[in-house]
Amino acid sequence: MPQRPPFVSLATDFGAAYTGICAGVVYGIVPGATVLVLSDEITPFAVAEGAMLLRQALPYLPVGVHVGIVDPGVGTPRRPIAIETGRGDVLVGPDNGLLVPAAEALGGAVRAHVLEDPAYRLPTVSASFHGRDIFSPAAAHLAAGVAVADLGAPAEPLPLDVASPVVGEGELTAPILYTDRFGSLILNAGPDDLAAAFGPLEHGAPLEVSGRGERITFAETFGGVAPGEPLLWVDSSGLLGLAVNQGSAADRFGMREPAVITLRPANS
Amino acid sequence: MPQRPPFVSLATDFGAAYTGICAGVVYGIVPGATVLVLSDEITPFAVAEGAMLLRQALPYLPVGVHVGIVDPGVGTPRRPIAIETGRGDVLVGPDNGLLVPAAEALGGAVRAHVLEDPAYRLPTVSASFHGRDIFSPAAAHLAAGVAVADLGAPAEPLPLDVASPVVGEGELTAPILYTDRFGSLILNAGPDDLAAAFGPLEHGAPLEVSGRGERITFAETFGGVAPGEPLLWVDSSGLLGLAVNQGSAADRFGMREPAVITLRPANS
Amino acid sequence: MPQRPPFVSLATDFGAAYTGICAGVVYGIVPGATVLVLSDEITPFAVAEGAMLLRQALPYLPVGVHVGIVDPGVGTPRRPIAIETGRGDVLVGPDNGLLVPAAEALGGAVRAHVLEDPAYRLPTVSASFHGRDIFSPAAAHLAAGVAVADLGAPAEPLPLDVASPVVGEGELTAPILYTDRFGSLILNAGPDDLAAAFGPLEHGAPLEVSGRGERITFAETFGGVAPGEPLLWVDSSGLLGLAVNQGSAADRFGMREPAVITLRPANS
Repeated sequence: MPQRPPFVSLATDFGAAYTGICAGVVYGIVPGATVLVLSDEITPFAVAEGAMLLRQALPYLPVGVHVGIVDPGVGTPRRPIAIETGRGDVLVGPDNGLLVPAAEALGGAVRAHVLEDPAYRLPTVSASFHGRDIFSPAAAHLAAGVAVADLGAPAEPLPLDVASPVVGEGELTAPILYTDRFGSLILNAGPDDLAAAFGPLEHGAPLEVSGRGERITFAETFGGVAPGEPLLWVDSSGLLGLAVNQGSAADRFGMREPAVITLRPANS
Repeated sequence: MPQRPPFVSLATDFGAAYTGICAGVVYGIVPGATVLVLSDEITPFAVAEGAMLLRQALPYLPVGVHVGIVDPGVGTPRRPIAIETGRGDVLVGPDNGLLVPAAEALGGAVRAHVLEDPAYRLPTVSASFHGRDIFSPAAAHLAAGVAVADLGAPAEPLPLDVASPVVGEGELTAPILYTDRFGSLILNAGPDDLAAAFGPLEHGAPLEVSGRGERITFAETFGGVAPGEPLLWVDSSGLLGLAVNQGSAADRFGMREPAVITLRPANS
Repeated sequence: MPQRPPFVSLATDFGAAYTGICAGVVYGIVPGATVLVLSDEITPFAVAEGAMLLRQALPYLPVGVHVGIVDPGVGTPRRPIAIETGRGDVLVGPDNGLLVPAAEALGGAVRAHVLEDPAYRLPTVSASFHGRDIFSPAAAHLAAGVAVADLGAPAEPLPLDVASPVVGEGELTAPILYTDRFGSLILNAGPDDLAAAFGPLEHGAPLEVSGRGERITFAETFGGVAPGEPLLWVDSSGLLGLAVNQGSAADRFGMREPAVITLRPANS
């Protein structure tokens, strides 16, 4: 049992106010908890973006209970679940793939259970705000020491539904997972995929986006190209990203998720 | 006297930075406090939106001191007040109706006093940032145990100034209170008003917005209609809302507060 | 040594998620800390805006460790630094002038050191996310009691690079420092500059922006002019601001940073 105060994080597409209500529900059940709003500004309904955020962020947070809510299916029969990880965390949210990549990054899913027991819900459960009525109270009770298995029946979490990168002859095709706050386009592909497509690639190598005349530079950081210039880099979560130094790649290339991008070498 | 740490929530139209300053002022006076930013993104100057948020949210937060600031009149002679509720909370903010619906939802106003005593303000009070100089220090001192009656003269809080719904012959007219983050239009009317206008209404019943050809469905949740389809539903605070599943009703209907909407039954 | 819990604030241009990760890193190292997100919505790359926010905000926060990150040079050789202030705070961030005005407002820089010792960084330092890998761990260790001088070599912080106001014959020229959330244009000039240009100016005096026909009123508060009317006022940080009561000066005048504004008296 931890000596440290119970730690609960919240990541949602709710905006500030509804996320704040969820935090308030947690504090009401576990007054001494530390509650961190990891994010309240995931793009609405963007399950893949939320999943990548949780996968990237949670390994840097203390072991605790982490709530993730991006839930286009609220009010439909999709199940609310909790997943215990090898590191000792519990992930709480809808069973739509959102939590699965993070669970893998935290030592894998040890067990998962459906959030069924009314004792760990608010007395009244609304049709549209399960964050407040189901997920937050479950997280609070888990932080207070309730076991995952006490919440409900065992479950097998559904995987995240995202297209894989495709390595072709001298080209790499990958879906845009999400557009970040700076307008950078984060791809579902990593440096291994890049190497598989193009062989070892030095920083400074020229590439191009298929169908666009423009040259982009494979760079270690934004500072590796002049302001206003486009680059391909490996972001801090290990994914390839298409960016513009001090600008927006989404605006420059006129693209956003769920579009697919094909990268090719450019003539140097 | 509470055993739990003093709890202070903040809800403002300031954005992050100015709200963060307010939280910092509270921590400076009550280092052990739990401070929750309930929202820093209320639409600027939208008193009705802020009032509905506080009314909806505060019953889910721990008993504590809750600061609400949406204050078009800052720097004018409107009074700063604190309202003690039947549940044991203290609400702190401008006397412009913002706090009154929440006080009613928390057991009613037991007493209210003007924030006058300079001992519970910062040493220098600016003309434009009463959140920092008056409201936050008062909240911190209240959280530390100062009695509401010690702050200043008794006051009778001003009511919120919002139009009531009108039930006509087979129609319901209500003002848009606010537009939420998803573009849903929240109305100042509830299911009782709907029943008064149309009699008992089954989920799935077709309605229309007067002057628009389009049919909307009365649904329990967003998932009750196909993606892209409009619906009328009862939101988690008990108000009627006009929404589009995975879309924006504000964009679809080209309407926002303070417009008024008239609902009618549609031919099925 | 403080009896109060270690206090860490974060102000970034990262948005919620990346700022939340930074907070998580701090909690992981100092579980009992109080972590305040002062702001996660500084305009991306706007060093001057961030510097003015820190200068304005930090004097109202408890003595603690304050992280400021607006870092167009991340990944380039600019140095990460910590500055100890006369008040007893430590400011942590990039050495690009961001922290310097705040240090001056907190009793001046007592000492500054480069964040070099790997013991106070995460084990792996990425090229693009120094907030997570360098600044947040340094801040956490400082909050836990590590001395500034233990972090690395002494440094002389670089100043903030901003144009000064120019007082001409009956006119005042100043750069727009930043545009706030309400669309108000905050100038790098204060009431002393105004007095130097125009002599003592009464509230209500008419001014005009050079090259625009429109009259603006020097007012104590937004409420000093009618809704929709422009005003010049002294904001809560002591800077002149051009605003529109319940509107946006940026939209009304079609200007933003880094534009320069010249104020002149208007005929009354």
